Amino acid sequence: MEDGQPFSLEDIKSHNRPEDCWIAISDKIWNVTDFLDIHPGGPQVILKYAGSDATSAYNQVHAPGMLEETLAADKFIGDLLPSNDVPSLSAILEAPGEESSRQSELPHLHTLISAPDFQDVASRTLTPKAWAFYSSAATDLVTHTANKSLIRRVMFRPRILRDVKTVSTKRKILGCSSSVPFFISPAAMARLAHPDGECALARGCGNEGIVQCISSNASYPLPAIVKAGMKGQSYFLQLYVNSDRAKTAELLQKAAMLGVKGIFVTVDAPVPGKREADERVAAENVASAISGAVASNDKKGGGMGRLMAQYVDKSLIWEDIEWIKTVSGLPVVLKGVQSAADAIMAVKYGAAGVMLSNHGGRSLDGAQPTILVLLELHRTCPEIFDQLEIYIDGGFERGSDILKAIALGATAVGVGRPYLYSLTYGQEGVEHLTQILKDELETSMRLCGITDIDEAHPGLVNTQGVDHLVAREPEHPYIRWKPKAKI
Amino acid sequence: MEDGQPFSLEDIKSHNRPEDCWIAISDKIWNVTDFLDIHPGGPQVILKYAGSDATSAYNQVHAPGMLEETLAADKFIGDLLPSNDVPSLSAILEAPGEESSRQSELPHLHTLISAPDFQDVASRTLTPKAWAFYSSAATDLVTHTANKSLIRRVMFRPRILRDVKTVSTKRKILGCSSSVPFFISPAAMARLAHPDGECALARGCGNEGIVQCISSNASYPLPAIVKAGMKGQSYFLQLYVNSDRAKTAELLQKAAMLGVKGIFVTVDAPVPGKREADERVAAENVASAISGAVASNDKKGGGMGRLMAQYVDKSLIWEDIEWIKTVSGLPVVLKGVQSAADAIMAVKYGAAGVMLSNHGGRSLDGAQPTILVLLELHRTCPEIFDQLEIYIDGGFERGSDILKAIALGATAVGVGRPYLYSLTYGQEGVEHLTQILKDELETSMRLCGITDIDEAHPGLVNTQGVDHLVAREPEHPYIRWKPKAKI
Amino acid sequence: MEDGQPFSLEDIKSHNRPEDCWIAISDKIWNVTDFLDIHPGGPQVILKYAGSDATSAYNQVHAPGMLEETLAADKFIGDLLPSNDVPSLSAILEAPGEESSRQSELPHLHTLISAPDFQDVASRTLTPKAWAFYSSAATDLVTHTANKSLIRRVMFRPRILRDVKTVSTKRKILGCSSSVPFFISPAAMARLAHPDGECALARGCGNEGIVQCISSNASYPLPAIVKAGMKGQSYFLQLYVNSDRAKTAELLQKAAMLGVKGIFVTVDAPVPGKREADERVAAENVASAISGAVASNDKKGGGMGRLMAQYVDKSLIWEDIEWIKTVSGLPVVLKGVQSAADAIMAVKYGAAGVMLSNHGGRSLDGAQPTILVLLELHRTCPEIFDQLEIYIDGGFERGSDILKAIALGATAVGVGRPYLYSLTYGQEGVEHLTQILKDELETSMRLCGITDIDEAHPGLVNTQGVDHLVAREPEHPYIRWKPKAKI
Amino acid sequence: MEDGQPFSLEDIKSHNRPEDCWIAISDKIWNVTDFLDIHPGGPQVILKYAGSDATSAYNQVHAPGMLEETLAADKFIGDLLPSNDVPSLSAILEAPGEESSRQSELPHLHTLISAPDFQDVASRTLTPKAWAFYSSAATDLVTHTANKSLIRRVMFRPRILRDVKTVSTKRKILGCSSSVPFFISPAAMARLAHPDGECALARGCGNEGIVQCISSNASYPLPAIVKAGMKGQSYFLQLYVNSDRAKTAELLQKAAMLGVKGIFVTVDAPVPGKREADERVAAENVASAISGAVASNDKKGGGMGRLMAQYVDKSLIWEDIEWIKTVSGLPVVLKGVQSAADAIMAVKYGAAGVMLSNHGGRSLDGAQPTILVLLELHRTCPEIFDQLEIYIDGGFERGSDILKAIALGATAVGVGRPYLYSLTYGQEGVEHLTQILKDELETSMRLCGITDIDEAHPGLVNTQGVDHLVAREPEHPYIRWKPKAKI
Repeated sequence: MEDGQPFSLEDIKSHNRPEDCWIAISDKIWNVTDFLDIHPGGPQVILKYAGSDATSAYNQVHAPGMLEETLAADKFIGDLLPSNDVPSLSAILEAPGEESSRQSELPHLHTLISAPDFQDVASRTLTPKAWAFYSSAATDLVTHTANKSLIRRVMFRPRILRDVKTVSTKRKILGCSSSVPFFISPAAMARLAHPDGECALARGCGNEGIVQCISSNASYPLPAIVKAGMKGQSYFLQLYVNSDRAKTAELLQKAAMLGVKGIFVTVDAPVPGKREADERVAAENVASAISGAVASNDKKGGGMGRLMAQYVDKSLIWEDIEWIKTVSGLPVVLKGVQSAADAIMAVKYGAAGVMLSNHGGRSLDGAQPTILVLLELHRTCPEIFDQLEIYIDGGFERGSDILKAIALGATAVGVGRPYLYSLTYGQEGVEHLTQILKDELETSMRLCGITDIDEAHPGLVNTQGVDHLVAREPEHPYIRWKPKAKI
Repeated sequence: MEDGQPFSLEDIKSHNRPEDCWIAISDKIWNVTDFLDIHPGGPQVILKYAGSDATSAYNQVHAPGMLEETLAADKFIGDLLPSNDVPSLSAILEAPGEESSRQSELPHLHTLISAPDFQDVASRTLTPKAWAFYSSAATDLVTHTANKSLIRRVMFRPRILRDVKTVSTKRKILGCSSSVPFFISPAAMARLAHPDGECALARGCGNEGIVQCISSNASYPLPAIVKAGMKGQSYFLQLYVNSDRAKTAELLQKAAMLGVKGIFVTVDAPVPGKREADERVAAENVASAISGAVASNDKKGGGMGRLMAQYVDKSLIWEDIEWIKTVSGLPVVLKGVQSAADAIMAVKYGAAGVMLSNHGGRSLDGAQPTILVLLELHRTCPEIFDQLEIYIDGGFERGSDILKAIALGATAVGVGRPYLYSLTYGQEGVEHLTQILKDELETSMRLCGITDIDEAHPGLVNTQGVDHLVAREPEHPYIRWKPKAKI
Repeated sequence: MEDGQPFSLEDIKSHNRPEDCWIAISDKIWNVTDFLDIHPGGPQVILKYAGSDATSAYNQVHAPGMLEETLAADKFIGDLLPSNDVPSLSAILEAPGEESSRQSELPHLHTLISAPDFQDVASRTLTPKAWAFYSSAATDLVTHTANKSLIRRVMFRPRILRDVKTVSTKRKILGCSSSVPFFISPAAMARLAHPDGECALARGCGNEGIVQCISSNASYPLPAIVKAGMKGQSYFLQLYVNSDRAKTAELLQKAAMLGVKGIFVTVDAPVPGKREADERVAAENVASAISGAVASNDKKGGGMGRLMAQYVDKSLIWEDIEWIKTVSGLPVVLKGVQSAADAIMAVKYGAAGVMLSNHGGRSLDGAQPTILVLLELHRTCPEIFDQLEIYIDGGFERGSDILKAIALGATAVGVGRPYLYSLTYGQEGVEHLTQILKDELETSMRLCGITDIDEAHPGLVNTQGVDHLVAREPEHPYIRWKPKAKI
Repeated sequence: MEDGQPFSLEDIKSHNRPEDCWIAISDKIWNVTDFLDIHPGGPQVILKYAGSDATSAYNQVHAPGMLEETLAADKFIGDLLPSNDVPSLSAILEAPGEESSRQSELPHLHTLISAPDFQDVASRTLTPKAWAFYSSAATDLVTHTANKSLIRRVMFRPRILRDVKTVSTKRKILGCSSSVPFFISPAAMARLAHPDGECALARGCGNEGIVQCISSNASYPLPAIVKAGMKGQSYFLQLYVNSDRAKTAELLQKAAMLGVKGIFVTVDAPVPGKREADERVAAENVASAISGAVASNDKKGGGMGRLMAQYVDKSLIWEDIEWIKTVSGLPVVLKGVQSAADAIMAVKYGAAGVMLSNHGGRSLDGAQPTILVLLELHRTCPEIFDQLEIYIDGGFERGSDILKAIALGATAVGVGRPYLYSLTYGQEGVEHLTQILKDELETSMRLCGITDIDEAHPGLVNTQGVDHLVAREPEHPYIRWKPKAKI
């Protein structure tokens, strides 16, 4: 290898075992044997390409530089010989050419006039795997569906005859200035939608003056994303705490150094939910690739959601919040609070904010829609609105949806999937979507008779359509029974 | 030009810029350069035809005489040479011949036996642009759909064994005699449905003894419409207050002189709602016409609804009501009241009536259905029924729908879209629809055991199916939180 | 004519005017000029066949002997010559042969195992006109649909571990013994489904021991129907009071003489509801038959429902009940009571029973479903269950549906449309349907833990799913407004 | 016959009458004349094959050895000659080869990732008869559908930031250790899904550590099933009490000897519900087989459900519970309790548990969903949770569904149909489904923040979406009327 003699695919194909695993990526060959066990996505997804060319699969989820940054230099084996062979297994699996042909089908951006339009385009142009990963939610989609439908059951009570010539949507979010009261909710693996991935999101956010909450599982390294944005732009970092706390500490310190403004600790996914669409794609891939072999799919599935969650610490507890604050020196927001009781706990444990979220319906199917949790705060602990900031996400895809949450006391709303879908157009899509949402929000404000988002108040909405669904704390109307076990 | 030498289309095609803009309409050429900025529909829609023949597009929305009445004589350039050229861009855009072929498909009028029948015919025979403009509502159609579905959830409690041989549906509306307790809600651009537009509506109303509320954005000039009707016939004028108040004053004085009986000031649309079907048609037109060019569609869309709203004063406030009353000398009704609080304000500011309306779901999607606002008045301020007249519209398309509102205290019901759809048959359609609605109303009254519309009372309806959705003033059952900002 | 010389169709075709109208029926020619104005179905339907052969149309709705019984002997003109001409207009209109071909498509009766099965067969085998007449309901079918869906929302609370070896479904209905607590609700024109019409119903009822309530608008004369049954069998007569009271008196006295056991006065249809499916068929017939002519369809439609209601007295009032009782000497039941207030009135005016009915959703669309009226009695005037008998109909098509009403205090349930549909199989169908319903009822009783229908009680049902929809008398929860007019 | 001379089918075909009935099964000929009347499935189903070969029909529902065990030795007539004849009637009826071809269409087991996946496969691969028998429910499927949809309306209120690294789903059920808080609900005739039938269930339960509740109507004899399992494995026996109590006593004593741990007496089906899908298949078979003959289908249908219920004692009462306890010496659970009142009775009569069940919606359509009964216990008699064990079934097909019931106080949940569907893959399917449900349950527990199933409590669920449907005992909110009959 010292002499730089390039290898053919034939040369490496015997290194296809867990004890001896080489893969080729972008015409370079790497020894990933030692890396298998620490790959955040698990060893299995790499072993699928052991002894062969993994370029296409790699590029779908990882940024170009990520490999060099992660592996030690001595893991580089050598270059790959150009080949005019028949397509490799990986090439077949990934359907080469598919991406570009799909991209060419994109309708003109100006014909998209709403967030659902972006979803529609994404459903038709993303690869099946990417679409399944982004759009899927837990089991029967009950919570995913209810998130949106319950927001729709909150009605407006517009006020009239007020001067609405000028309107301001500006709001401070965790101390950061934002042109609007919404931000990009963290979502993993943005490269599945566009090669520029999270960098395109960063550039779009910079131009539109909005905040990006970056996923722990971003396709690009955190520094690359921050570098893609503009000076003074605000970022939050979403955090899955690693079972290996040292790695988390390293990440938090890096984030603080890069100027990230807050840490959104995910607390609603100690284990991943069961996203069946995602797992079905994985199951089918296994079936078609390894035909004849005994498929080793365990009952927990092999979808991307499951794979990426393997390193997450299932034992994270309230006391760890203090550690995260200390290590990062940043305000901490709990993402995934789903009850008034836990919001009260968050105050007690020093969180700067709570994000009412059920992971877009991706964690526990049947979890109550987030708008009900927001109303539960009003019913159970209204003082909490003065004690920390309240964010919310899950099913918000219209400016009017956002206004409803703000009127009910939320500081800001997270918008997740729509931004991933907008990425099919790269940075331009991100900006276009932002302008659409902002225009919808301004229109809704004017039609409600307010000119500053800070004027939004509960009297602008009629919540009677969902009030009967709001849980009552501390006493249920008639259930008094308690189990004997300690709770 | 003095010598009357006619021009060819070739001669005018260079006058196609904002600084130098000619268009041909009905074989006459006009210089509209100065007019561009004061066109109520905005300059863009004219510039589309700059330097070419705009006859077809003009005729769809404007009456023949309207141009001469609006432009100074010196803007007339000359006549257009007859041409046997290939069709112009505008001709292609408007699909010449389309209208007549569609009209010939109309089923016999006597086979239409309900308002939904007219909607069905209109959906199949109007041009896509006209259908989109009339039928569209804001974003996700939540309010548009709920308007109708909530009326349907109000049930009748018919009374029996009363002599119902004769029945009277007559009612005074804002002091005007009407054969029925409903009137035509204002709707813009009736020429899109029929060349006679608002004039056909006027003639139909005259024959049937009902009141027409004329839109500020009518295709025909106000005098032409009033002249089309019969002596003694009653009209209301719907008003969008112009940013240029002098124009509004001029319009109000003209209306008073023409004998109009009341002004319905639109208060629920300081800015237009986002009607996506309407905007999609516009977006597609741009895309197909200017292929290759960079489409300049801003995020606010270019649908007809948006265009026509450009001159509307966004800063209209309560204090302006007095000015409208004074200038016109006419009673003023606020069209678009959506809460009990604003109905109370309307009394305070001297309105003669309020029209509970959400613009047929075209303004703010998510706004509470109008039947809920009517019930909110009962719950919050029942004394208001003695203080001014209450009108209501939005989703009323059956005689029984109308009876429900009257039983709940409404003075009259506005019927909008169904009358536009009936216009596909011109005046005859307007009369046929009126007779259908009146017959349905009479049948419903008889089957409820009443013989005069003034006997209708709340005991005839069971509102339990919607009572739980009615907002509670002044206190919400459990939300006490208030934002810090001034409201 | 004295010489009995037969006529050809050619001979009579000039007698086709209101002033001179002959028709041929079953090879006999009649002068119906004087009869036109007193035809219960109105003159128009006869004039359609003026001067031609009306046999086919006549047979669809009238029994063979009905004409002779109605017309004076001197109206007989003579016999009709056998003809081998081309089919007449009437023949074309009625599509000769259609009926028989459809009948041959009937599936084996034993494959029908529920009332909905009969509906399904009827929808496929009846003529479009008959299907439209039977199945149609008022305007948007809101009440028709809700009748059934609200019964379904009443749940059972079955009791267990009781000896249910033997079970009795016997009940007294208005003093008559019945093998089951349900009876055949009156429905007009049974010949549309089967040539034996109401006679087949009578024979089936006799064999099954159930009561038939005969329609005023039966295809067969009352004596023929009663004669078709067996000795000791019980009948009720449904009554539309005629504007000509003498005719009603004559009918009532004939009924009493024939041994009819009670009079069910229809009080929910002083005018007929608007049944659009029925009217559409009529409108299409006019359009296709008189092509080119100006269709004279008024706005009130020309469906069978409208035609048959022309003679009904719209001025029937409470005081007339006494007259009906006196003239007939029979107990009177008010069919079509729709509120607790009117049930209380019925007691006051001496009715023996009330039938909670909205005419199967055929009268006033939007009227509250009958199950809500039954519950309203419990809420408002529970003492009424001891004061008269309560019957109910509208949407009952399962034995379990029937049990719910009985458990809630109804004496008996009327079953209407299902029996008309069962008539596609004639008498055998009527018996088969009765056995199905009875078996379903017995099974439901056993599974509820009761063995005698008299044991049914409210504790067996859970009405929480509809309780919130029950009207509150005398006070609405928040509506206090009252109109100024006298009510 | 003494000389063992084999018979041809021709030889036996005259023995085809009730008084003289032979059938061939697996190449052996039996005289079943005396057996006809005591066949649990009724005589009719045997007579269908009288004088012919019944092997295929027999094998579908009965285990190989069952016949020898049941009939006396002298009923054996002789062997059947091998035949190369045309297929017999029974062979045609049962479509030989159908089963194997369907089995070959089974997708790979690892691609099934949920209980609904098994249902989907079963619907496509079972014979129509088997699918109809398993999937059918009573009449309009109201209860069957509501069972599931109401569970879905119970929402989770997940708690966060608890250490959920390890999780235990273990629970004692009626004193038996189980790896999970669910067990297999009894379901008849498992051979319809797989030749190994209940034996495959037993082996799967053994490997997974769960309890099987064996149906009285199992395809295999009880000893064969118990023998198929492993040592120490727990079974319950579902019991239909036979009109012939001696047979029941014999069965109970056999069960006790075999080590069965509890008796689940079915109390919600003294007569079978009307399962129309099941009956339709039967009706069609009759129609196609006996074409031309008069079909003798009575109104009670001939579906498998009806046939198998013929021997059930309709007069079982509360006092019989003591007898069952005494004869078996085992704890008795009442399966099919549907009201709080009967749960209280169960305590009084010494039941060890109650199973809230409506027979999967197969008994009385309209019966309240079981989740409502569970909540009724909380509202009416919360002390009952300390007095006996509460089981529940009906529509539970997700781990999250199960957790909801446990949180609301159920000891365990019965899973029925999904296990029958899993049997299409035999034992392997049973284990795969168990692992799926267990994994879903563990995930749901972790996402709710609990680590031991005993920690589940009502505060984890929001029942507001169904609370309004829960019956109120002892007083209804407004119904006070009581029938005069004794109840």
